[in-house]
Order: sequence, then C-alpha cells, then structure tokens
Amino acid sequence: MILSNPMFDVIKGDLEVLEEELLAAVAAPVELVTEVGTHLVQSGGKRLRPALCLLAARSGPQFDLQHTLPLALAFELIHMASLVHDDVLDESDTRRGAPTANAKWGNQVAILSGDYIFARAFDLIAHQEYGSHVSARLAQLVCNLSLGEIVQDSAVYQASQGEADYLDRIQKKTADFLEICCELGAEIGGLPGADQQKLAEYGHCIGMAFQLTDDVLDIVQTTETLGKPAGNDIRQGIVTLPVIRALAVSPAAEELTAVVTDPEMTAEQVERALAIVRATDGVDFAMSKADAYLKRAKAALPQGLPEGIYEAYVMVADFIGDRDF
Amino acid sequence: MILSNPMFDVIKGDLEVLEEELLAAVAAPVELVTEVGTHLVQSGGKRLRPALCLLAARSGPQFDLQHTLPLALAFELIHMASLVHDDVLDESDTRRGAPTANAKWGNQVAILSGDYIFARAFDLIAHQEYGSHVSARLAQLVCNLSLGEIVQDSAVYQASQGEADYLDRIQKKTADFLEICCELGAEIGGLPGADQQKLAEYGHCIGMAFQLTDDVLDIVQTTETLGKPAGNDIRQGIVTLPVIRALAVSPAAEELTAVVTDPEMTAEQVERALAIVRATDGVDFAMSKADAYLKRAKAALPQGLPEGIYEAYVMVADFIGDRDF
Repeated sequence: MILSNPMFDVIKGDLEVLEEELLAAVAAPVELVTEVGTHLVQSGGKRLRPALCLLAARSGPQFDLQHTLPLALAFELIHMASLVHDDVLDESDTRRGAPTANAKWGNQVAILSGDYIFARAFDLIAHQEYGSHVSARLAQLVCNLSLGEIVQDSAVYQASQGEADYLDRIQKKTADFLEICCELGAEIGGLPGADQQKLAEYGHCIGMAFQLTDDVLDIVQTTETLGKPAGNDIRQGIVTLPVIRALAVSPAAEELTAVVTDPEMTAEQVERALAIVRATDGVDFAMSKADAYLKRAKAALPQGLPEGIYEAYVMVADFIGDRDF
Repeated sequence: MILSNPMFDVIKGDLEVLEEELLAAVAAPVELVTEVGTHLVQSGGKRLRPALCLLAARSGPQFDLQHTLPLALAFELIHMASLVHDDVLDESDTRRGAPTANAKWGNQVAILSGDYIFARAFDLIAHQEYGSHVSARLAQLVCNLSLGEIVQDSAVYQASQGEADYLDRIQKKTADFLEICCELGAEIGGLPGADQQKLAEYGHCIGMAFQLTDDVLDIVQTTETLGKPAGNDIRQGIVTLPVIRALAVSPAAEELTAVVTDPEMTAEQVERALAIVRATDGVDFAMSKADAYLKRAKAALPQGLPEGIYEAYVMVADFIGDRDF
C-alpha cells in the first residue's frame, strides 16, 4: 500500500484524513450501497490519484487541506467507479485479493453502485467553489476513460496494433488521469499557470511510465507475486508493448500471433506466449520507454517547491521505475 | 411520440432544435460510441423531461433557448444513460420496438456508452453559467436514480410491500426527476422562487401520476398495443400498486402471492396474475391516485403564465391521465 511508502511521508497526515473521508463519501441512504462502497474503500488501492492531487496542491502557496480534499476524493471515487464497471465488463472475481463488487453482489448492484459513485464525485465537486471548468475537466475525464475502455475492448485479440496505438491507449487509460490530478491540484494550491503546466507534464509522464511498468509486470511476474494470474492481459486479448515488440522481433512471432489473437487460448498457450515475449527484448524495450518518461517527469518539475515536496515527486517517479521487479 | 402531441405545440420549435442538439451531444471521437448514441436518440422517446424543462423555462420572463438547451439536453442524456444501464441490468432486448444497446453491441459497449452519456450531461452543464448548485442537483439526481433502482431490484418478488414503499419507490424513480426538470427550468427562466416551487410541485405530481399510469398500462394493456410483453413488471418481480391493492382485497390473493413471488413464473402464470388483478379494483384504485396527483398538479400551477403555457401544462396533465386506455 502506497500509504506506508516513504515517498508520501510529506502528505501522510492528508492521506489518513482522505481515507476517513472516502468512507464518508461512499455512505448512502441505502444500506446495501454503503456496504458496497465500504468494501471498495477497504479493499485498498494505491490512492495514487488523490496522493498526486494533494502533493500538487501542497506545492503551491495557497494549500488548504479542507479545500483540496473534495477534489482528491472525487479523483479516487471516479477511479473506483470505473474499476467497478471494468470488473463487471471483464467478469473479474477478485481485485487486490478481495472479491469484486460483481462477484459479491452481482452485476446489477455493481453497475448501479458504480453509477452512484461516479455521481457522488460530481456532487462533491459541485459543492466547492472550484469554478465550473473543474467540473468540466472531470466530466471530460470520465468521457475519455469510457472511450479509452471502449477502444481497448474493440481492439482485443488483434496483433496488428503498433506502438502508437498502444501509447495512445495508455494515455487515455492512465496518463490523462494522473495529469489532471497534478494539474488541478496545482491550480487549487495556487501555483502559477506555468508551474501548473509543468506538474501536468510530470503527471502525464509518470502516468505513461506507470502503465508501461504495469503492463511489464503482467509479463515478468509470476502468479504468486502478482496476486492475480500472470499473463492476464494476454488472456484478455490486451496487446501491450512488450508483446508488440516481440511480435516485431521474435523468431517465434508467428506462434505468438496465433496465441494472442485466439480468444479461446488455453493456460498453456498463455504460458508459451509469456515465454516467447520474455525471450525477446520486449520487456527491456518497454522499460526503457518507461525510464525515458520518468526522466522527462523529473525534468519537468518546477523550481522552488516547498521543503520535502520535490523529493516526494522524485520518490514517486523512482518508485514507479522500481516496482517489484 | 410526444413531439407530435398538441400539448407541446408551444415549444414545438424548441423540441425540434433539441432533437438536433441531442444528436450533436452524443457524437464522440470514437465512431462506435457515436453510433450507439445516434441509435439511442433515433429510437425515440417521449422527451418528456426536456419538454418540461423548456416549458418551465418559457414560463419565466428571462427565457433564452440557447441558455436553456444544455440543461434540457442534460436531462434527456441522464434519462437515456440510465435506460441504457437498466436495459443491461434487465437483459432487455428491445425498447420502444428497437433493439437495445446491449442487444445490438453487447453489455461492455452498453455500460461504457452509458457512462459516457452520463458524463456528457455533466460536461454540458459545466460549460454553462448556471451556478454550481445546478451541477449538484443533477449529481444528486443521478445518485437517487441509482439508489432507487437498487432499492427496486432488492425488493423484487416480494409481496409484503405496502403502498408507502411503492410511492416512495416511484418518487425516486420518476417524480423526483420530473420535479427537478420543472424546478431548474423555472429558475433558469427567471421565475420568482415561489413560482419555482409551484412548478416543482407540479413536476412532482405529474411524475407520480405518470409512473402510476405507466404501471397501470402494464396491467391493462395487451402485448400488441404495448409493443412489449404485457405483465412485464410482474414477470420482473416488480410489485406495482394495482398488484399491491389486489393482494389486499382479492379472494385469490394467495394464488397471486404465489405467482408474484416466484422468479420462475411461467407465461401462463403471468396471465393468471393479470386476470386476478384485473378482477379487483386494483387498476381503479391506482388510477384514482393518479387522478388525485393530476388534480394537485393543476392546482399547483402559478398565476400569470405567458400565453399558451398554462394550457400546455394542463394538456400534459390531461395527457398523462388519459394515455391509451
């Protein structure tokens, strides 16, 4: 859990308050919905989005925790709601070792609870004096997350995707989200426009790196360390950069194509595909992209940040480049 | 289609513009999503919510079509998105004689398109200077629609529900929605606060009456006139007021209970349940409630409305009390 990671020591107190407020935010007048929300909050998660928002807000001269919290909460609620819907779409039974909402309560409750949590995010924001452009950005974020997911779903089991398709997809899925967390956090913290843009660039770059490393983890980790079956992306037909690279350079490219384009692939075929990808430089190729993004992220950081904040940003970047390999 | 109904002659031009703007509002940078949205818009619908919003806005001295349209559109988009998700939940294949989004494109696309359309509504609103309370009311509306649906789903196939449960349920499902359309429309049209409240009361009452008559239609109409199987509510385990009444007064109450509480009921049993309900005063009982709400709706109308507007409100109420019986 990111909460216990030293990189967020500087906002540790903020994140503790956030955790309590998250529970309050998912409380509903219908007990079942409160139960679902509480389960989702207590199943954990990295809280990377609200943490970046808080860090960005603390970077500015006008930081005010009470003023920042609703925005940070809204980001986590939107993330949570989209995961709930994703788990319905993917028919997933577990997430982070805990049963998913659809596994525990069925698709009906999961879809409607997701809708409820999305709307709670907009409700929280509307009660603040952030200006209507903040609501607009959040609405566009939800639009883009949905579009990104649809694009991803419509491209499954296709071996013809190139690196550009992949990068575009992970930008919509992850990088745009982390970018807006940093950018709006910085705005609310009162940073000047140029510094808001620098932090937006930082968020974009660590978002790209985060998804790249996430996709690499799915290739290099074993089922045990991952807490979910390895090769999950391949099984779901999601073609990630290490696979795209392997399809271009592996002598066994033809065999790999046959597996990743087959919705009926067996567990043995997934293992074989993983072995083919691991035998190429696909993982190194993706990691070198991730490292380049992390370098860009650090270079984008504004000057003159408050004590401890610059170091925290650097630690976040290093953490992403260094996750569990 | 309500568009061709004389009750809305006074806003006929507005509704024509609305129809075009709806198509523009569901256009997305991903073609598949545009296709889904276009299908949803073109499958029709009564447009009752935006029509009430436009009528309420036209009731005030500051009516401005361009200023009102985004709000009217947002109401229809929220309605549309919630229907899309409902159809996934209910595994419905057709709505208004056209295939549902889930039937045509699968659950994944339907759920995500619903999310997209919800977010588009908030996006539209955020680009207007309505004040943040309007966004807050819309967010609460979506929260309450989700909660209402969860409550309804968790009460299916239960014969123990009373009239109060039923009225509470249809308020969350329909009446609150029509109320907010009238209330916010009136606000944007510049009506004084007291008149906004009167139109809110009007909206609430016609919403209650609308759902009551809708539920009666499901009992009295035949499959042919309804365009969907009659007794659909009974089949889905939704216990409506005519059934609640029949359960209280019918000599065959025990048999009726056995059918409506059985998720495995056969088509013959549905027909038998309909016959039992029709043999009681259940339909009259529900219609007299609807009539009382319509009387209250008309009595709530403010004085001194612009020409033709008062008459339109009355025609809407009469239309609801008079639908296809």
